[in-house]
Amino acid sequence: MNFLEERILKDGLVKEGNVLKVDTFLNHQMDVELLDEIGKEFHRRFADVNITKVLTIEASGIAIAYAVARCFGVPMVFAKKAKSINIDGDMYTAEVESFTHKNKNQVIVSKKVLSSDDRLLIVDDFLANGCALQGLISIAEAAGASVEGICIVIEKGFQYGGRSIRNLGYRLESLAIVESMDHETQTVVFRDQSE
Amino acid sequence: MNFLEERILKDGLVKEGNVLKVDTFLNHQMDVELLDEIGKEFHRRFADVNITKVLTIEASGIAIAYAVARCFGVPMVFAKKAKSINIDGDMYTAEVESFTHKNKNQVIVSKKVLSSDDRLLIVDDFLANGCALQGLISIAEAAGASVEGICIVIEKGFQYGGRSIRNLGYRLESLAIVESMDHETQTVVFRDQSE
Repeated sequence: MNFLEERILKDGLVKEGNVLKVDTFLNHQMDVELLDEIGKEFHRRFADVNITKVLTIEASGIAIAYAVARCFGVPMVFAKKAKSINIDGDMYTAEVESFTHKNKNQVIVSKKVLSSDDRLLIVDDFLANGCALQGLISIAEAAGASVEGICIVIEKGFQYGGRSIRNLGYRLESLAIVESMDHETQTVVFRDQSE
Repeated sequence: MNFLEERILKDGLVKEGNVLKVDTFLNHQMDVELLDEIGKEFHRRFADVNITKVLTIEASGIAIAYAVARCFGVPMVFAKKAKSINIDGDMYTAEVESFTHKNKNQVIVSKKVLSSDDRLLIVDDFLANGCALQGLISIAEAAGASVEGICIVIEKGFQYGGRSIRNLGYRLESLAIVESMDHETQTVVFRDQSE
């Protein structure tokens, strides 16, 4: 069991509807030492890859993406939800459905900050059905940038997002893959990734 | 002129309507070295204060708050906009109007992550009319936590937010205070804070 799986068992809460709450350390209150450790671990796993930028989506991906970008010494870009008057007209867009919020968002990245020279590491906190990730991948494709790898902190292995992204040939690393969870017994079972 | 003011003059863009765009290095694409430097500078300015937590608001405050929290070695909490099913019923709320998006948001912080024992440093990227900051302060007050200081990266000195917050007695530090800007000449004038 790695440091993240241990922390999930210690401080995570399983709620009805397959919701895993990690809001005391990962996506509302953030443990900065844990974030630093997550950044280092993804840097170790993708040490062979030449990255120019880290791409994520607001809001809970931002701190994790920064932790990863620090380790690689590259800029971090976060895709924004909905249109802001602070973003110029020239932007890449994708439509993303949120599992958590049960709604659809337009996500946007300014054309100024992504180009066909970019080799990206995409970072997010959760992977469930993969909608957010598909949106980021389609933005990268629209920019002509390559997706060198994908870093997910917690993957819900019982949903189809991870499998479909891997089937598309992407190198996807998840620090913890939840195979099943039960809110009555507060049990979380992780996929064995050691081999 | 400090490192941030220099960077704003180099890479910032003045748009009509007193909008200062810093989206290539601060709030869309983030320069991680600049963020680290910002974190260190706020740590230096508040080195005399005993902080237990850093509080910010999603989305663009998150990376900056993480940079500051790292330097103090304390957790970071970001207030969320709108209700998420991933937040428990027990939460502090405040209503915040966005200068950028011209709309109102409910912002929420779980009662699990703020208490009357907390001594807070509030962090945000921009201060204009101070609505977001007022919302965070009222959440801190509702929790019975003390606000030991406020860290703003860019303050619009020609709007009333900074003055009203300082008049309330808060210790507010802004790395750059814009006195005026002009989109035709691309001029930005900063308040002289040296003395």
